[in-house]
Formats: sequence, C-alpha cells, structure tokens
Amino acid sequence: MNTWKLVLEYDGGRYHGWQRQPGLKNTVQGRVEHVLSQMAGVPVEIDGAGRTDAGVHALGQVASLRLDPAISGERVRSYLDQYLPDDIRLVSVEAAPERFHARLNATGKHYRYRIWNAGHKPVFSRYQVFAVAAPLNLEGMRQAARHFVGTQDFQAFTAQKSKTKGTERRIDKIEVHGRGPEVHVDVWGDGFLHKMVRTLVGTLIEVGEGKLAPDAVPDLLAGRTRSQAGFTAPPQGLYLVEVFYPAVS
Amino acid sequence: MNTWKLVLEYDGGRYHGWQRQPGLKNTVQGRVEHVLSQMAGVPVEIDGAGRTDAGVHALGQVASLRLDPAISGERVRSYLDQYLPDDIRLVSVEAAPERFHARLNATGKHYRYRIWNAGHKPVFSRYQVFAVAAPLNLEGMRQAARHFVGTQDFQAFTAQKSKTKGTERRIDKIEVHGRGPEVHVDVWGDGFLHKMVRTLVGTLIEVGEGKLAPDAVPDLLAGRTRSQAGFTAPPQGLYLVEVFYPAVS
Repeated sequence: MNTWKLVLEYDGGRYHGWQRQPGLKNTVQGRVEHVLSQMAGVPVEIDGAGRTDAGVHALGQVASLRLDPAISGERVRSYLDQYLPDDIRLVSVEAAPERFHARLNATGKHYRYRIWNAGHKPVFSRYQVFAVAAPLNLEGMRQAARHFVGTQDFQAFTAQKSKTKGTERRIDKIEVHGRGPEVHVDVWGDGFLHKMVRTLVGTLIEVGEGKLAPDAVPDLLAGRTRSQAGFTAPPQGLYLVEVFYPAVS
Repeated sequence: MNTWKLVLEYDGGRYHGWQRQPGLKNTVQGRVEHVLSQMAGVPVEIDGAGRTDAGVHALGQVASLRLDPAISGERVRSYLDQYLPDDIRLVSVEAAPERFHARLNATGKHYRYRIWNAGHKPVFSRYQVFAVAAPLNLEGMRQAARHFVGTQDFQAFTAQKSKTKGTERRIDKIEVHGRGPEVHVDVWGDGFLHKMVRTLVGTLIEVGEGKLAPDAVPDLLAGRTRSQAGFTAPPQGLYLVEVFYPAVS
C-alpha cells in the first residue's frame, strides 16, 4: 500500500465536525472517506490531524491514508476535485513516508479565530466570524495573551474531562491583529485540548471588552477551574490553518 | 407623513428577489415591510430602486417610504437593527424630500459582478461569486466592454419581452479588474433591463475565455437578437452597489 498526505480546506458550517460518527451524521471525515471509497472500490479510512468540532472550519486540515499502489496521486486529485461537495476542497495530495500518520506525527498546529468587531452586523460573512459589538482593546488582549505562552496546565481552558492524557500543553505564539472590520487571534502550539482555543479566545474577548484584567490570566491558569475562565467562543469563527510536521531529513 | 430614504445591504441567497410577491414567497421587500409594519402598527409599503432578481445581492439598495411623523429616524434605525434577519442590514436611514421616490428619482446605478477565476473552487465564498475555471483574458474583456458604453439599444441583452418602455439604455462606464482570485466587472449606467447586467457579463466572460472576439459586440448589439449574445451569468455573483440621485440644490 502507498501512503498519502492530503491537505483539505472546508467550510464546517453544515457538518457535525470532522470525526466520522456512527449513524447518519454528516461529518467531514465521513464525506471524504465516502468519496475515496467509491474511487478505490474498497472501504478507505483516513486519519485527520485535528478533530475539529461541529461548525469549525479548516484552511489546512491534514489527513493520511493508504491506497493500493495502482492508484496514482493524479487519480486522487481528479476524483476528489470532481466528487467532493462544494464546501470541501482538496488543497494538495502528496506521497508520504510509509508510516506517516497525520495526527500522531503532527508537531504543532496553527489556529485562527475571526472576530467581527464593527458597529454593524456581518451580512455576507455571518457564518464565518463571531460578532462582538463593543470595540475591543487589542493591546489588553495582547497583554493577556502573553500569559498563555509557554508550557502550562490548561485544565481551566478545556471541556475535556479525561485526565488520562494530561492537560499540559505548549503554546508557542499568540498574535492579535486588526484586519479591517475584523480582529484575528492566531494561535500556534504543540496541540490543543477540546475547546481550548475557543475558551482561550473567549477569555481574550472578555479582556478586550474590559470585563477581565489582562493580568488575571495567571490566576485562571493556576486555579485549574473551568468556571473561572472566559466563555467558549462559538465554532463559526475558528479555522484550523496549518498542521506542522518534522522536516524529513 | 414624513418621507425616508433607506440604504440596505443584503445577501440575496435565500430570497426570491427584492420584489414583494403574492403568496408565501420570501422576498427582501416583503421582509423589510413586515418589520416596518410591526414597528408602525399599520401596513407600511416601501419602493426599492432596483428590483433585484432571486439570488442577487445588494450592498446599497435604496428604498423610500412614508411614516407617521411621530416615528423618528432613531426609532427606524433601532427597530430594523433589532428585527431584520441576519442577511439584511440597514446601512443608513435619512429624512428625504416629501416626494422622494427611490426608483422614479434614481438617475443611475452601479452594479458589480464577482467572478471567481482561480484554479480551485471557492469554498467559503461559493454563494457570493460565479466560478469560471479558465484564466480570463482581462484585456480582451476590456476591449469588448468599451463597445457597450454609450446610449444603445440593448434588446439583445435582456430577457425582457415588453416593448412598452423601450430597450434603449445608457452605460456610462465598465471596469474589469483582477482582485486576488477574483475578477470584478463594475458597470455604471442610467438603468438596466431585466437580466441585462448578467447577460452583458456572460458575454464578457465568453470574450475572456476566447470564445467570442471583442469586436463581435457591435454586431450583437445591432442584431438585437437575444440568442446571439452571451449566456446569462448566474445571480449569485451580482451586487447592486450604489444608486445615484440628483444632488439636492
């Protein structure tokens, strides 16, 4: 079997998230696997790097899969171009090392959160941003963001119950930028707990609105209690931008 | 009664066009009138400058209406902000001269058509552009566009059957610009026949694809036969950008 690396872009708006689920739920993984299975004539399973939640988008989700060597990359490209629905797009397909696994080999991810922060509502991008009416204090958000950088226990910033894998994660960088009527929060890290980016962004929004002091963040982290951190920002503003892998040497 | 001028932005995707229709059809005019009638406590009718077709969008549709003098512009603003659906937005409301009529007084309109012209499909803007895969020859489109400028008979560029109002219209300017992965066709004129902008754009696309010579346009206009002109570009790429009125002196 040959191993392939796919990069996928999708509008998560009408999907129950990335991950295939029993029953009839419409998931991105399920849709892509369905098309690939039709192409291959046998069931094909793919592994995604990030299990994006319902409504979360991707510009660069990565998935790995194995296919019969008779199937070329060209064939994968043209079949997916033709049969994927309008809201999922194959960005690239390339041959990968035999044991490549999109999730297990990932060393980091970049997420973006798009906040619509204008005095009026977002008519055309209403499913692709989260609207916050009050003008946000970006400098305060940047001050708060600095406290998240580094390796820390993010227990207070996740809906995740299981302690089996631990709640320590490393955040490498957070950028907060105005982009016309929008504010973008870009986060790079080694991995993220369930709803961690959205809770981190919700907390930054509360700082930007002046409801929380930037220097309150260390106490929230130390307290390890979900109820003390900010709200969970809704899924439609979140994008998985890129997934990082070790350079092949 | 006081007369008001409203400027409205809307995503036409889920509407059966601007114009109110008998029965249960969902139209932009019907939606706005419904909200205004609730506000006023009596039926309110509005006149729109352009009768945009099903699926056509607006950045600056203009509507006129009359209201009891007890209702302030502030009240109109706050009521529409609160009760219009997510895909219709009040851009501005201002007092107008008593006899102002958005359609009858309009002296010109600006429409934009957004063509997605990249090698891949538009995942996030798929309801807001028309995708053309082959790279368009913009210079050819500009050459063809020049032939449309001026006062001419646009019989060949409309689905309109009625001859009562004539098919002569004046086009003031057409601009064709690349904008990242998109090509925008901007058209200014004194008024437009039914589907005229979309047929004009469809013809320019055929020129851009090399299917039609730029200098074929004068013959299409002279022939006055709809079947000889280009196809009708679909509604989702079309935007009513602005409506012009005489300066009040």
